[in-house]
Amino acid sequence: MKSKKMNKIDLKNIRIDDNFWVKRQSLITDVVIPYQEAILDDKVEGVEKSHAFANFRIAAGLEDGEFYGMVFQDSDVAKWLEAAAYSLCIKPDEDLEKRADNIIDIIEKAQQADGYLNTYFTIKEPEKRWTNLHECHELYCAGHMMEAAAAYYEATGKDKLLGVMERMADHIENRFLAEKREGIPGHQEVEIGLMRMYHVTGENKYLKLAQHFIDERGKNPQFFIEETQKRGWKHEIMDPYNMKYNQSFAPVRNQKTAEGHSVRAVYMFTAMADIAGVTGDEELLKACEAIWENCVNKRMYITGGIGSNAEGEAFTIDYDLPNDSVYAETCASVGLIFWAEKMLGITGDGQYADIMERALYNGVLSGMQLDGKRFFYVNPLEVNPGVSGELFGYKHVLPQRPGWYQCACCPPNVARLIASLGTYIWREEEGIIYSDLHIGGTAELENATIRTVSEFPWNGAVSYEIVPKGGKKEFTLAIRIPSYAEGHKLSLNGRDITAQYGVHKGYCFISREWNVPDKLSLTFDMRIRKVHTNTAVRSNIGCAALQRGPIVYCLEGADNGERLQELHILKKGALKAEDYQENLLGGIVPIKAQGSRIYANGELYFEGEFERKEEMLTAIPYYAWGNRGLNQMKVWIHEDGGIL
Amino acid sequence: MKSKKMNKIDLKNIRIDDNFWVKRQSLITDVVIPYQEAILDDKVEGVEKSHAFANFRIAAGLEDGEFYGMVFQDSDVAKWLEAAAYSLCIKPDEDLEKRADNIIDIIEKAQQADGYLNTYFTIKEPEKRWTNLHECHELYCAGHMMEAAAAYYEATGKDKLLGVMERMADHIENRFLAEKREGIPGHQEVEIGLMRMYHVTGENKYLKLAQHFIDERGKNPQFFIEETQKRGWKHEIMDPYNMKYNQSFAPVRNQKTAEGHSVRAVYMFTAMADIAGVTGDEELLKACEAIWENCVNKRMYITGGIGSNAEGEAFTIDYDLPNDSVYAETCASVGLIFWAEKMLGITGDGQYADIMERALYNGVLSGMQLDGKRFFYVNPLEVNPGVSGELFGYKHVLPQRPGWYQCACCPPNVARLIASLGTYIWREEEGIIYSDLHIGGTAELENATIRTVSEFPWNGAVSYEIVPKGGKKEFTLAIRIPSYAEGHKLSLNGRDITAQYGVHKGYCFISREWNVPDKLSLTFDMRIRKVHTNTAVRSNIGCAALQRGPIVYCLEGADNGERLQELHILKKGALKAEDYQENLLGGIVPIKAQGSRIYANGELYFEGEFERKEEMLTAIPYYAWGNRGLNQMKVWIHEDGGIL
Repeated sequence: MKSKKMNKIDLKNIRIDDNFWVKRQSLITDVVIPYQEAILDDKVEGVEKSHAFANFRIAAGLEDGEFYGMVFQDSDVAKWLEAAAYSLCIKPDEDLEKRADNIIDIIEKAQQADGYLNTYFTIKEPEKRWTNLHECHELYCAGHMMEAAAAYYEATGKDKLLGVMERMADHIENRFLAEKREGIPGHQEVEIGLMRMYHVTGENKYLKLAQHFIDERGKNPQFFIEETQKRGWKHEIMDPYNMKYNQSFAPVRNQKTAEGHSVRAVYMFTAMADIAGVTGDEELLKACEAIWENCVNKRMYITGGIGSNAEGEAFTIDYDLPNDSVYAETCASVGLIFWAEKMLGITGDGQYADIMERALYNGVLSGMQLDGKRFFYVNPLEVNPGVSGELFGYKHVLPQRPGWYQCACCPPNVARLIASLGTYIWREEEGIIYSDLHIGGTAELENATIRTVSEFPWNGAVSYEIVPKGGKKEFTLAIRIPSYAEGHKLSLNGRDITAQYGVHKGYCFISREWNVPDKLSLTFDMRIRKVHTNTAVRSNIGCAALQRGPIVYCLEGADNGERLQELHILKKGALKAEDYQENLLGGIVPIKAQGSRIYANGELYFEGEFERKEEMLTAIPYYAWGNRGLNQMKVWIHEDGGIL
Repeated sequence: MKSKKMNKIDLKNIRIDDNFWVKRQSLITDVVIPYQEAILDDKVEGVEKSHAFANFRIAAGLEDGEFYGMVFQDSDVAKWLEAAAYSLCIKPDEDLEKRADNIIDIIEKAQQADGYLNTYFTIKEPEKRWTNLHECHELYCAGHMMEAAAAYYEATGKDKLLGVMERMADHIENRFLAEKREGIPGHQEVEIGLMRMYHVTGENKYLKLAQHFIDERGKNPQFFIEETQKRGWKHEIMDPYNMKYNQSFAPVRNQKTAEGHSVRAVYMFTAMADIAGVTGDEELLKACEAIWENCVNKRMYITGGIGSNAEGEAFTIDYDLPNDSVYAETCASVGLIFWAEKMLGITGDGQYADIMERALYNGVLSGMQLDGKRFFYVNPLEVNPGVSGELFGYKHVLPQRPGWYQCACCPPNVARLIASLGTYIWREEEGIIYSDLHIGGTAELENATIRTVSEFPWNGAVSYEIVPKGGKKEFTLAIRIPSYAEGHKLSLNGRDITAQYGVHKGYCFISREWNVPDKLSLTFDMRIRKVHTNTAVRSNIGCAALQRGPIVYCLEGADNGERLQELHILKKGALKAEDYQENLLGGIVPIKAQGSRIYANGELYFEGEFERKEEMLTAIPYYAWGNRGLNQMKVWIHEDGGIL
């Protein structure tokens, strides 16, 4: 395996302009980022106090006070800065940039003389630095700030934060490599941060340090136990004996299954894939592929949600995918996208783009209310008022999105992903331009400027206007054909070229000399698909889910009345996509499904048959659920065999 | 409504002699009671220490040491003594009686001069007596000891313990009635104990005191909050604001639904019904009937299990009956039987006997391993190895019966119920003999001696030999016809009398002059019934359960291989009761059901259909599950419409 140039497309060169994503990006730039900033600065009343900016001001000596918040409170500032950086790329904003510069100035002042940066330890327990890698997230916070530093440098060309994090990285390198102190992060993330620094600066030492943390993990599965015993104090109630939780049970190259805390896991897999791509490390890639296979084919919800267990926000066992007691943290689906993007970059295999798209349009988007003001941590596939959010085993499954959380990981994760979405649409390498996501807009690439008009995700109709650099140029345009697309047609300047270009690993590779103004158009069928589940999954027996294009659908009480469990899709019934409804749930295509209500309202237990009446079911996109007040919701719908 | 004589049949006058219950009673007398005694005396190695006898010895000043165990540890001794009393009735045992006398001597010595009896407070915090009714179970322990005292007096004629409890009852009466101190028990049970004392002694004051506690409950819903504030300390982590938990949210006469901790609830309902029967209190009976209706028709598992929520071991909301995260504590089903027996006594309505039977043959029996050595607290209707007992939300649902618990309420509850089962078979009042349960044996009743030969629960064939007192006597024999019985036939001395005696409220009343040797025989169909559930219950959609007679069946992996969720019963398929198998699971009639396995083993999510093959399903009685090692189990089986 050859190492691959893994630089992302410069976000500033991609402008999204379509009916679906523009409004969501605007929500992020205009609502979410300012709102989060106000929260981090404790300027929003009636929500959990953040104190995250104040912590930095106190650590910088600019303000008196005590540290407040989670031990990883700094990471909220980092994720906000990273999202702000992307926001500046897609919507320049002098005032925002000035405010970001200000907080970066404060961060610089909060850095210690030896490069160390972490407000919790600096303010509260400086003598305990680096003694509790298991619970205290110093490396995790550093990783997020490295991502922010790289993003902010790319967005603005300003390298102050990058300088701060270079010094912090040197401090870390000194401790863990030069001084050879044993240690791995309790929550992976620094590996991703270091790889971002490596990609931006080209400095090999960051790659080496990322590799070090990846390779160290699981070499000594006892590490966190030994660390706990050595230091003799605990910060939280984290069990060092649970080595699966943070994936330290075995060297990462020997891991075959997706285990433990799902966010920790996918952040680690992302870094593993990134390193494998850069270094050509076959063994590391093989581990990624094996874990990927296990993750997406045995432990993933149809929505791209992962981590089915509330305890430890964790993966459990193969095929254990309960719909109503689910976890499926928004952050985990965000991380699955990070991982998928790296796997796609290395292998060029469209299966990774399929999963990336699945998580993006379903398990991630569901995390955010349509107005951008409320967020889900947990993304259930079934909620039942009176049970969800209330009873034991279901308390974590909120049936409506709450406001700001004390542990505010998910909202900024969604914000940074959607703000940087431009970088997931195109790849360009070795003379090939890849179109990975069918999102409209303009891309300034090395070989060409491409203007895309897309009706995605509602219709399979995308047209590309290709303007080669210099008016004329030979290169390959690889257009992704999603696995669910049927009867796709490609036409070039009005001529059908479908037969000429077959689909290889999910892409049509069109190699030719491109001329101004070449016009390519792609259409494919957006048939409604009725999807079944491997019967090893207990919770979906007898049920089907509806998908159309990348969108997973669900039933909500608001459209279908009470007792959704009584509703059945007719086995051979008609499924119809309605016209696009501009004013419904931010603009959606609802699905009507011929169905039945099979019911019995008498005795609790009885002999004899059910009653049955025809009923038209209305399904809406899963991501849009929970925007119309408290009501029942269900992704997996019972099927009516027709002779019940 | 007229008050009714509610005295139970004397257990010594009933001898059970049939193929089903004799061995179970022997298990109780020969295995369970001696084993529990050894545990209470800390003579069994490798199980949770009990210290319950030692607590009494220490409180009696016979031994040095500290109190150990739950605050209600005394009740284990009481329940054991009660079971031992029943054991002495059904199987006289001088040595057991001597040992019981010994512990009663010690209990007497542990009683304080003012009548107070409770080893926790006597040993540990005598100054805190009666200050924490909410959490500290003094009245609960007293209630159980009153039951033991009454039972032991009835069994042996010895009144030492009865005397102890009369003095304790006087102490309680003095405090709560004479001195008018506000107070209700945190865990109901003293009301039952007082009613037992009333029935045995005929002393009205015990009835009055029981009525007092019943009527006081919920009059001041703030009581436990005020008590907590007043005393300023807490014993456990019990929330005084959760008034539903202990049914103190409203006066009991205003309660319409079964709420809160299910054992507390049914113990209270039992006492309410008992009082209503004795006093003719219509309002109290109406409350019982309303709650009963809610309980059995909206909140009860098909097994007679109640309390679907692990948190608070509690009822939740109507139709919330999850099979795999269920609670359904054995004790709650035992209590449901207590309650049903009282309701049956008052109303004479066979519907109560049906539920009594349902709980007895299913949700209670399932609590005990076939060898009598291990017990379930929680009685799930579905277990899945790898999930049940292991993952969050399912940790309480053990897939195999464990040994002794620290909180050892269920095993002695099963023991005392099965040992006293004789008193549930017959009732006799006002010239009517009721046959409530079809259990074989000999009953010495007021009007007659009846010898019953029964093939129950495996066949609907019962024959009665009636020997009237004095050779000849006019009285009514009321034979229960279970609601599920079909085509029942009654014959008297070989002559079919079915048409002559219709079924009224579940009974055939045969009034005549009986002569020696009259022979009555009852037969009815034990057809296998395929039962469905009201579709308000989400967890059973698309599923059926098999019942035959009173027995609910289940599938186990041991008979049906892996992935029970793939198995379907054919909608119109044959159901066949096998011959009785003496050597299988203690002797059972298995059911064979024509079925199919509908499966898909490929991709996790896919378009297209399932594969399907015919498969014969083997169902076993639910009570016998979990006796063949770790495997999957399922009561509700998917149905195959036939054209899937």
